[in-house]
Amino acid sequence: MKHFLSLSQFTRDEVQALVDLARELKANPIGERMHRKVVGLLFMNPSLRTLASFQAGVGHQGGISVVIQPGAGSWSLELRDGVVMDGEAVEHVREAIPVLASYCDLLGIRSFAGQKDLAEDLDDATIQRLASFSTKPVINMESASDHPCQALADWMTLDELGIPASGNFVLTWAWHPKPLPYAVPNAALMMAAQRGMNITVQCPEGYALPSRMIDRAHQLGAASIRTCHNRTEGMAGAQVVYCKSWCSEEFYGQPEKEIAKRAGLRDWCLSESWFEPAVPDAKVMHCLPVRRNVKIADEVLDGPRSVVIQEAENRLHAQKSVMISMLEGLKPWN
Amino acid sequence: MKHFLSLSQFTRDEVQALVDLARELKANPIGERMHRKVVGLLFMNPSLRTLASFQAGVGHQGGISVVIQPGAGSWSLELRDGVVMDGEAVEHVREAIPVLASYCDLLGIRSFAGQKDLAEDLDDATIQRLASFSTKPVINMESASDHPCQALADWMTLDELGIPASGNFVLTWAWHPKPLPYAVPNAALMMAAQRGMNITVQCPEGYALPSRMIDRAHQLGAASIRTCHNRTEGMAGAQVVYCKSWCSEEFYGQPEKEIAKRAGLRDWCLSESWFEPAVPDAKVMHCLPVRRNVKIADEVLDGPRSVVIQEAENRLHAQKSVMISMLEGLKPWN
Amino acid sequence: MKHFLSLSQFTRDEVQALVDLARELKANPIGERMHRKVVGLLFMNPSLRTLASFQAGVGHQGGISVVIQPGAGSWSLELRDGVVMDGEAVEHVREAIPVLASYCDLLGIRSFAGQKDLAEDLDDATIQRLASFSTKPVINMESASDHPCQALADWMTLDELGIPASGNFVLTWAWHPKPLPYAVPNAALMMAAQRGMNITVQCPEGYALPSRMIDRAHQLGAASIRTCHNRTEGMAGAQVVYCKSWCSEEFYGQPEKEIAKRAGLRDWCLSESWFEPAVPDAKVMHCLPVRRNVKIADEVLDGPRSVVIQEAENRLHAQKSVMISMLEGLKPWN
Repeated sequence: MKHFLSLSQFTRDEVQALVDLARELKANPIGERMHRKVVGLLFMNPSLRTLASFQAGVGHQGGISVVIQPGAGSWSLELRDGVVMDGEAVEHVREAIPVLASYCDLLGIRSFAGQKDLAEDLDDATIQRLASFSTKPVINMESASDHPCQALADWMTLDELGIPASGNFVLTWAWHPKPLPYAVPNAALMMAAQRGMNITVQCPEGYALPSRMIDRAHQLGAASIRTCHNRTEGMAGAQVVYCKSWCSEEFYGQPEKEIAKRAGLRDWCLSESWFEPAVPDAKVMHCLPVRRNVKIADEVLDGPRSVVIQEAENRLHAQKSVMISMLEGLKPWN
Repeated sequence: MKHFLSLSQFTRDEVQALVDLARELKANPIGERMHRKVVGLLFMNPSLRTLASFQAGVGHQGGISVVIQPGAGSWSLELRDGVVMDGEAVEHVREAIPVLASYCDLLGIRSFAGQKDLAEDLDDATIQRLASFSTKPVINMESASDHPCQALADWMTLDELGIPASGNFVLTWAWHPKPLPYAVPNAALMMAAQRGMNITVQCPEGYALPSRMIDRAHQLGAASIRTCHNRTEGMAGAQVVYCKSWCSEEFYGQPEKEIAKRAGLRDWCLSESWFEPAVPDAKVMHCLPVRRNVKIADEVLDGPRSVVIQEAENRLHAQKSVMISMLEGLKPWN
Repeated sequence: MKHFLSLSQFTRDEVQALVDLARELKANPIGERMHRKVVGLLFMNPSLRTLASFQAGVGHQGGISVVIQPGAGSWSLELRDGVVMDGEAVEHVREAIPVLASYCDLLGIRSFAGQKDLAEDLDDATIQRLASFSTKPVINMESASDHPCQALADWMTLDELGIPASGNFVLTWAWHPKPLPYAVPNAALMMAAQRGMNITVQCPEGYALPSRMIDRAHQLGAASIRTCHNRTEGMAGAQVVYCKSWCSEEFYGQPEKEIAKRAGLRDWCLSESWFEPAVPDAKVMHCLPVRRNVKIADEVLDGPRSVVIQEAENRLHAQKSVMISMLEGLKPWN
């Protein structure tokens, strides 16, 4: 069974086929290509875009969506194997997932990082294990270290913006009150790498991305990758700035130490001053939700360089492309 | 963009057109008039009738509904502008609403009163501001000081009951353990005024409605308006009694003082004795939910004068009328 | 109005007709037999299978499902009659149910046992009372002492497994950290009785099922019923073992005493050793959710004798059969 767990499981050509279909579907959103197909959406964590865009997209094409939120109307789920379930969790994913799969044609699963063990989260083993319990194709709706629906929408957005495959992509760190996992920065980095871009990772000292992420991005085809701690240098030449916060590798799984470490870094809030004078036309991307005036200033989000709503809208089209490709056996499910 | 934020934004003739279509849809509920249209339903506050009737109505006409409940499965939302979002709220309505609008053809929004500042709530500025972020038409699913879907259903119910446009409408206060905002009393008052009714506001001393509400009702065409603190006098001639609780103007935003003020008013629970002997045939309306034996006695709700279920059912038809009129560009969207 | 509140309200022949239609629908799941019909799903308690399978099944046949979860997005509901509602509950089921019924063609209701008074729970009076408020047919989605959708799916599963009508059915108790009500054991017992099976109730001393349940099972047509406290004896001849936990009659409504009483019974966790050597081919049924390694060991659930996923899938088909039979006036609604 071929799932959709990461963009990097596909060739660049296969990803481009998904983007191409997404653009067709953006032009012609309504149809019968999911007629009476049932898509189960299992959310272990909150959502707004994913929840709404999957339901809208499924409905556009004549399908049915079923939303399950464990712990909020549905039974709380146990994910660990071999455990004696005499605590809070009432049901095990080893039952919940095959049961849902038996009602559905496709299954979306969201399961965020445990944020305890870095290697475990970067392996993204949980989403692979959850998918292995399903008898139907699974779509990763954001996992410990990936968010391929977002990455596909972002690729599509870069295409729409006319940013060339070899364009200059800056992935910048931003301050956030909580330590966040690597799911979106990793997905964005790998997407930019697969697209063949020149990548700058811009972050304070101590926030360089784990070397295995950088190594993987090289393997996937990045034209170049550099890490910059100086923003003047980092922003130079940027065509697009992708903003995100992440935990330092040093204090992964140690939230109190991490919060102390970043105490002096609140000026890492993306503002218009970052773009002056060198890159006045650079676009700003963010996966949303975004904390205003914490990660990105109002002036940026409300100004012409922000494409965050366009990215979010493209989730609708990108996900529809994946679902239809799965159901119809189109590339890369052919 | 013309939204549906208040009945009073329309002429009486325009409202009657919406009621007329609602009656047609009550007779013929099933059709294709919303074929594959997506209606986003953003609930900042709980709901039963609104949630169920919108979903049923959208489905009857071939549409798709998407429910978003911030803080319950979806990210908690920030509504204030300019704030540094380093607290609980994860996403701002300035992103959430345009994103949802990008997936939808229509957007319903429920956002109750802040109940801190009376003038601010009566201005109903929040729902107007939220609607301004949407690129698609917005339906007010109850705001700080309005509930036009309820008011439209109530107008339709009055028509069905054969209560003449110039009939006698009593809006009566009832005791409630919590101070409630003016949304429903205001919507009911303006609806009765626009319909041209003779209006009695019946309430304990200290609970007269704010003068700007009374002034507005006069402007909208009320045949007459009086305020009565004596129930024998107030009920005289009533053809319909609309029951609701509201906060006093004096202690708006001061719940402890308000609760103390109303301590002796528990006899303001609408019972059969209120109707004897003068108005045996008067009907009783309430928007629901209603606390039994607190606001209205069992004997009234379970008896023949209660039309609360009819009002609730008419929500289905009234809302469908609004949605179809918006989508098809019928009056008043022509 | 004929509702679907218990399998035992129907003759064996009528139940078989429902199972037969369910098997047809399993072979041909997609159709137009619920075209634009609205099914309201009122959940007083959590759910996974019921929520997902009803929504999938309704959608398969062109219908619309509307989910209401009081206290989670919807108003908290009062169930008691005559109460002065000045506490937490905002709305009474005497309004909520007829309102929902006015939007829907069918209504599913889940309302678990109060677990205070045994006789009251066994009477299952609450679900009957809730159904009496509805103007549309009601489906019991699990009540104080019944779960007819599960029982119908289980009957269908037994047929699929080739277990004869007079086969040997063991209903076994299992340890659980919380005292659970009789809904599923009662539904399973009555189903097996109505099917005409030879029934063994296997449980520790002090956990015999209430005599009125046993008496009722005899009336419904059980070939034989015995209670065994010795597992070697109980398992002898078993063709299917239905595993469930329930509260002792002695301490019903006294959770602390009940938990103390069962303290030494943690070895009542169904494992492979229970089947050796006498009944190697016996199947294991459970309604789910199941606490792994508490009620049933991993080795059983992951092995070939478990049919729990098949049972869960059959919920989809069984419920669709009930809904279509209600809507089309098929047996037993003819």
